[in-house]
Amino acid sequence: MLVREIAGYLEATFEGDGERAIDGVASLEAAGSTQISFVGGRRAQRDAQASAAGCLVVRPDFDNSGGRTVIRRLDPRGSFARIIRLLLPLEEPPPGVHPTAVVGKDCTLGEGVSIGPCCVVGDRVTIGPGSRFHANVTVYSDVTIGARALIHAGAVIGADGFGFVFENGRYVKFPQVGTVAIGDDVEIGANSTIDRAALGITSVGDGAKLDNMVHIGHNCRVGRHVVIAAQTGMAGGTVIEDHAVIGGQVGMGDNVTVKAGAVVGSGAGILSSKVLKGDGEIYWGTPARPLKQYLESLASVSRIPALREEIAELKLKLAELEKKLK
Amino acid sequence: MLVREIAGYLEATFEGDGERAIDGVASLEAAGSTQISFVGGRRAQRDAQASAAGCLVVRPDFDNSGGRTVIRRLDPRGSFARIIRLLLPLEEPPPGVHPTAVVGKDCTLGEGVSIGPCCVVGDRVTIGPGSRFHANVTVYSDVTIGARALIHAGAVIGADGFGFVFENGRYVKFPQVGTVAIGDDVEIGANSTIDRAALGITSVGDGAKLDNMVHIGHNCRVGRHVVIAAQTGMAGGTVIEDHAVIGGQVGMGDNVTVKAGAVVGSGAGILSSKVLKGDGEIYWGTPARPLKQYLESLASVSRIPALREEIAELKLKLAELEKKLK
Amino acid sequence: MLVREIAGYLEATFEGDGERAIDGVASLEAAGSTQISFVGGRRAQRDAQASAAGCLVVRPDFDNSGGRTVIRRLDPRGSFARIIRLLLPLEEPPPGVHPTAVVGKDCTLGEGVSIGPCCVVGDRVTIGPGSRFHANVTVYSDVTIGARALIHAGAVIGADGFGFVFENGRYVKFPQVGTVAIGDDVEIGANSTIDRAALGITSVGDGAKLDNMVHIGHNCRVGRHVVIAAQTGMAGGTVIEDHAVIGGQVGMGDNVTVKAGAVVGSGAGILSSKVLKGDGEIYWGTPARPLKQYLESLASVSRIPALREEIAELKLKLAELEKKLK
Repeated sequence: MLVREIAGYLEATFEGDGERAIDGVASLEAAGSTQISFVGGRRAQRDAQASAAGCLVVRPDFDNSGGRTVIRRLDPRGSFARIIRLLLPLEEPPPGVHPTAVVGKDCTLGEGVSIGPCCVVGDRVTIGPGSRFHANVTVYSDVTIGARALIHAGAVIGADGFGFVFENGRYVKFPQVGTVAIGDDVEIGANSTIDRAALGITSVGDGAKLDNMVHIGHNCRVGRHVVIAAQTGMAGGTVIEDHAVIGGQVGMGDNVTVKAGAVVGSGAGILSSKVLKGDGEIYWGTPARPLKQYLESLASVSRIPALREEIAELKLKLAELEKKLK
Repeated sequence: MLVREIAGYLEATFEGDGERAIDGVASLEAAGSTQISFVGGRRAQRDAQASAAGCLVVRPDFDNSGGRTVIRRLDPRGSFARIIRLLLPLEEPPPGVHPTAVVGKDCTLGEGVSIGPCCVVGDRVTIGPGSRFHANVTVYSDVTIGARALIHAGAVIGADGFGFVFENGRYVKFPQVGTVAIGDDVEIGANSTIDRAALGITSVGDGAKLDNMVHIGHNCRVGRHVVIAAQTGMAGGTVIEDHAVIGGQVGMGDNVTVKAGAVVGSGAGILSSKVLKGDGEIYWGTPARPLKQYLESLASVSRIPALREEIAELKLKLAELEKKLK
Repeated sequence: MLVREIAGYLEATFEGDGERAIDGVASLEAAGSTQISFVGGRRAQRDAQASAAGCLVVRPDFDNSGGRTVIRRLDPRGSFARIIRLLLPLEEPPPGVHPTAVVGKDCTLGEGVSIGPCCVVGDRVTIGPGSRFHANVTVYSDVTIGARALIHAGAVIGADGFGFVFENGRYVKFPQVGTVAIGDDVEIGANSTIDRAALGITSVGDGAKLDNMVHIGHNCRVGRHVVIAAQTGMAGGTVIEDHAVIGGQVGMGDNVTVKAGAVVGSGAGILSSKVLKGDGEIYWGTPARPLKQYLESLASVSRIPALREEIAELKLKLAELEKKLK
């Protein structure tokens, strides 16, 4: 494909050699003269000069004094994602249920659903059109999954929530008779687990994206377009409202509420029943608090040695004064 | 089933309409007039007034001035669990080995054992009567599992412990020739891993309950009726004594001892060879310490800005004094 | 096998009864008169006196005043590992692809490769000679794995990296068109996940050892002979140089660099783009810092109550002085 054709596809203009043929995509470091790459952040601006890429997707303010072949876009990374899809049509798993997969009775599979090898789907499961399961996924009975879901290998959806009654020195299972409902356009990472509700529903909203090894406890409600990075876990009954962004290895107790648009930094720990305000507020640390407070707290601790010295000095001066007065 | 029949089953008395028919269970918010629900904690007391449930299981001191149909019990949640089992007989997986499962040679499977689809069981494995494996579980050779175990999808029992000898700039495997022994009535969460011992046995005691993605390292000994929440991990040789309660995302180094009945809060980090006292003592933080100490430490840090101000004020006053004296 | 034969195999000398027959290995506590054990650390020195083992592998300076049958070696644990391999030839999974496994098209499997039950391997995957996959492993298309790899059950190699473009209120997938390359002699723990690169390669170097539930994000480069303990996760683009040692439950942001030979303690959190120096430097805590700084910071916090008292005392004395002066 020619540079001018790619620019045309993006409805963008180009500078340089529009007739140059592009046959692939690559990172700035790896790209050769027939490949296209993109220049995202500040570090990339520097690397761009050394890149051998045949064409670069760059920001409007990119300094092209070197006279490279470039396509200018407000969002180089997003535009580049579109170019990847244009040049490398994704090898989609074929629709249908792989012969080694096991699908229970009374299931409803939408058009184009792909169930990979060794997947196991329980009874009465509903899966919306276009959803794709990679290998070794397990879905327990009665779970509902929306359209265009992408479920990665080893994910387990609908296992029992972790609920027990302590009676006579032992734990007796609190029956987990609820289920799980996953919205449209959800991606669930490899080896993640989403437990069914004790009663009612554990839900994941439309467009939510979960990384690998994320654990969603029973009766949690994850909103629409929520992003959760790897190895984060939430206990029972937690609510993550729409468009919240949760980092990796975050831990949440029971019945936490993260309001719409909040950002929780990686490694944060949120105590049970805590409510985190939304609208872009950033939380950090354990117990999780607003980023500014977290940084102040770190700075405070780093100041302790200096405080000790100041106190020692004060003591000395005071002793001298007392001596003088005697 | 009628309210008076349910009360009779619990050997409890009821107030209100004993002839009301109940056909299901639900949460307070979701329950309708033919469903039963329960009122557990304080928050639930408030929600109970608004609930449309046909019947409520409540504490002895529940204020029923509204004249609802209620069943009074000392433990509403435990009683409700029994009602669930009464009204919704759990759909048990059928006994037997699913045709897609693979069971090795010389295994002993007790009566009623159910091995789900795509499970893989090694050689010489013993599984006690009534144990149920959900899909995609892997059990390595020589592992022993007791009666009535419930193993969730994706769990891996008996993989090699993580032990190496560093020789000539590289790591050489320390052969992991021990095994794993799981007691009776144990529940193991989805995608959890329990490694085999290097020598001897990694053990999980009767009645222990493990949540999802729990990692038990080689040669650990988890006691009876221990509860471990999701994403907690323990390195080699750690001992958790009976009835300890371990929160989620706890990390333990090698050879930790958690004494009987100790409680370890979520996110705690326990250093290698540390011994935590038991009998209901609560530990928190990293490094893990008694809850009171942890809270004092948090409070201490929050006081630093005030200390800084006090020191600044002292300095000022001292300087004034010195000036006066000159 | 006789004690003198075992000593001969190690090219070591023995003390005591060289004609004693040894038929197995065990821990110090469990070993009987026909079993061999080893004495590693200081604690083991004490336990050794009580052990009923028929023979002990000990350090050169072991106090054998009790006149036991011992073999002296500089590295008792390493030598013992060799003895285990001598006495208990490991039961290797048979070479070949298990009939329940699914291997895609155009794959290249080296000599002696063993693919366990219910494994799923995508298209165009290359696996080097002698590599062994336990059950339920998933490898996505286009991944390369070196020789003598040992992949434990439930591991997922090559799932999509976690990359999205936020457009019009929703997340659009950034196509993950790179792949994964695993070196020779790598061990990957149960339920670990190694994501494919967005562009280019996620790599794990020769001899690296990963424990269970380790998460390697897209475009990470893990060096040769790196050790990573359980439940550690790294986001995208992180570089771990050769011979680094990473503890359990460590979290790393994007584009972290851990230099060759660095040691990162369990539970540490490393911020994005941070560079940790190597050569045996030990890091600890969140944010990760050199161990000495971490310990000072802990000590600082523990001193705050004393500082408060000192300040209160200073205030008192100053007030007295002021009083006197008036």
